[in-house]
Amino acid sequence: MKYKFATRANSLKGSEIRELLKLTEMPDIISFAGGLPAPELFPTDKISDLTKEIIDKEGGVALQYSATEGFVVLREIIANERMKLAKVNTTKDNVLITAGSQQAIDFCARLFLNDGDYVICENPSYLGALNVFNTFNAKYLPVEMDDNGMVVESLEAIIKAHPEAKLVYTIPDFQNPTGRTMSVERRKKLVELANKYQLVIMEDNPYGELIFDGERFPSIKSFDTEERVIYMGSFSKTFCPGYRVGWACAADEIIQKMIMLKQVADLQCSTIAQREVAYYMLENPLDEHIADIVKVYKKRRDVMLESIKQYFPSNVKYTFPLGGLFTWVEVDAKLNAADILVDALKQKVAFVPGGAFYPLGDKKNFLRLNYSNMPEDRIVEGIKRLGEVLNSYA
Amino acid sequence: MKYKFATRANSLKGSEIRELLKLTEMPDIISFAGGLPAPELFPTDKISDLTKEIIDKEGGVALQYSATEGFVVLREIIANERMKLAKVNTTKDNVLITAGSQQAIDFCARLFLNDGDYVICENPSYLGALNVFNTFNAKYLPVEMDDNGMVVESLEAIIKAHPEAKLVYTIPDFQNPTGRTMSVERRKKLVELANKYQLVIMEDNPYGELIFDGERFPSIKSFDTEERVIYMGSFSKTFCPGYRVGWACAADEIIQKMIMLKQVADLQCSTIAQREVAYYMLENPLDEHIADIVKVYKKRRDVMLESIKQYFPSNVKYTFPLGGLFTWVEVDAKLNAADILVDALKQKVAFVPGGAFYPLGDKKNFLRLNYSNMPEDRIVEGIKRLGEVLNSYA
Repeated sequence: MKYKFATRANSLKGSEIRELLKLTEMPDIISFAGGLPAPELFPTDKISDLTKEIIDKEGGVALQYSATEGFVVLREIIANERMKLAKVNTTKDNVLITAGSQQAIDFCARLFLNDGDYVICENPSYLGALNVFNTFNAKYLPVEMDDNGMVVESLEAIIKAHPEAKLVYTIPDFQNPTGRTMSVERRKKLVELANKYQLVIMEDNPYGELIFDGERFPSIKSFDTEERVIYMGSFSKTFCPGYRVGWACAADEIIQKMIMLKQVADLQCSTIAQREVAYYMLENPLDEHIADIVKVYKKRRDVMLESIKQYFPSNVKYTFPLGGLFTWVEVDAKLNAADILVDALKQKVAFVPGGAFYPLGDKKNFLRLNYSNMPEDRIVEGIKRLGEVLNSYA
Repeated sequence: MKYKFATRANSLKGSEIRELLKLTEMPDIISFAGGLPAPELFPTDKISDLTKEIIDKEGGVALQYSATEGFVVLREIIANERMKLAKVNTTKDNVLITAGSQQAIDFCARLFLNDGDYVICENPSYLGALNVFNTFNAKYLPVEMDDNGMVVESLEAIIKAHPEAKLVYTIPDFQNPTGRTMSVERRKKLVELANKYQLVIMEDNPYGELIFDGERFPSIKSFDTEERVIYMGSFSKTFCPGYRVGWACAADEIIQKMIMLKQVADLQCSTIAQREVAYYMLENPLDEHIADIVKVYKKRRDVMLESIKQYFPSNVKYTFPLGGLFTWVEVDAKLNAADILVDALKQKVAFVPGGAFYPLGDKKNFLRLNYSNMPEDRIVEGIKRLGEVLNSYA
């Protein structure tokens, strides 16, 4: 050992899957692997004019260091518009701008997890969050899911068996990777349990505004009576991920510590990027842009699910996402999706094998499929090829 | 205690100084407090045209998710141009784009520090780095400085007394807060000690390219024979801080782990910001821009030092920075610079009291003065007022 790394560095290692997924970026691959929004829908024209407008108006200030907590206009828009859509009453003082919601996840972990602490989460859960928790040598208490999200009814028994657990991580809307949504009843119940057992809930909500069918459910934070919920949002899926602008919304005591953590981590988010996102929303209603995106994604979802029905073996199960970017496919329990990926790549189709989303790594027979980033004809063709691969195992 | 924070959160607390420094942002204050570059020197015209050019050329790709390690063109420029100026031979594969060098500092700490580990650093050192180390409950082995930087001659005895120490943090060029530069002899000696005692050296070098007098010294990394030096650079002082674009350059094994940490922390730096910095340098030699900045800053340094000589009490000592942004003022040992700040703010002048830069908090009679962010007439007026405050204690 040449370098004496900290013990947390042990969790930072490459993986076979990571290497395979690099192949998915080749142009001739039909990729359902990423979690990418459709770049052809970005409002590029408006954005490129915006930069000049901002610099004309603000000069060097738009490129200078700025406040750690973020651009005040952007924080106000988030508090008054985006959080309102999540049915949360808050103010800019409880909003911190972060580098995507990913950074908010990392900050929560740094703020609450001692080495080896437990994290309660959905089973399966977002890989990028698990990777954060792993750097704190977290232990997991995964809660099973059904079509209404985390089975909160089974949570109390888990907490009683592990009273030292203090953090719940959940993606209630159009979950990554499953596309499932937590019911309103369960949201309320989760807050009740948090109050009863003094838990903090990390509500990771980057997809909630991308709703295809019906009404959006009130966020978990909207039921938060004791300031125990940290809401994490992002413009990566509703606007452009390339800015790296997201936010955390939490109680004073928590947000103040997160601001100090932000200063430690990287001082602040990009001054100009924050202005571009804010100015865009001042001049163009984001909700209209989201309506345009949703129309396209909904169609792509429909095409993917219809194609799955048509081309996949009939014993395959899959979720019906009411919004967001993903569907979750379950194949025969004796199959390993990582092996399927190897065969699929030969047919120039890619997806993410589900094993890595299980914190305990105990299930392998799932595929995460993204439909937002491919045009309809490529979705049909890709699912057809993937169906051939799956049929070859039958 | 409502929230069960992790123990590291104890280090995240507000301070009196932090509250005072908020006052320094009021427009009628002559502030020598920040570490801000001069925004009137930012090439705003070229930048505002650049954005449109990039989006016209690359479309949505410029606003999409992109590679965690950073924009390949930018990494090549850093390897082939900026690192060459530091006399380091490297390639893009050993460069990771980070959110300023601040994030690189944080990543090094996350990679190497277990709870309570020792950090060897200059006494005094950069406050923002100490705040990072404090979140790991670091213990400090501060090394005294003289006009040639860290007194490396005294380091071996310190290491022998604490053989478990494994990390050295240093700012060799125009150090923050002192403005001092480490001699070439000491750079070589430091690498020798790192090799002998298996230390890793964090070379934080955001100011090295801002040299006023003479030739820049080769970086510590240029003498690195066993890949023990992590070089951290930034465009915040040489271009615009508002982009939040910096880098780390290190051995394969280290940089690979840092890339995985980047993915955990925030996935990647802003796609468009990285392109703007890169495209600017492709079309406009950065060295020419730096030459323009240096001319202005050198003049401001001269004006500040002349004014200090004229207006400060004669027993006050101060450093003569050969580049960078700061001079470091030592007043009578029985004075506390935090008290002086309270009086100075009444006269509408601000600076950072030196106490916080001492990891063990044992010295209070120092003032950090920044000269890059104020025009010459304000520097003269501010130093004059500060001189009156200092004379009032005589």
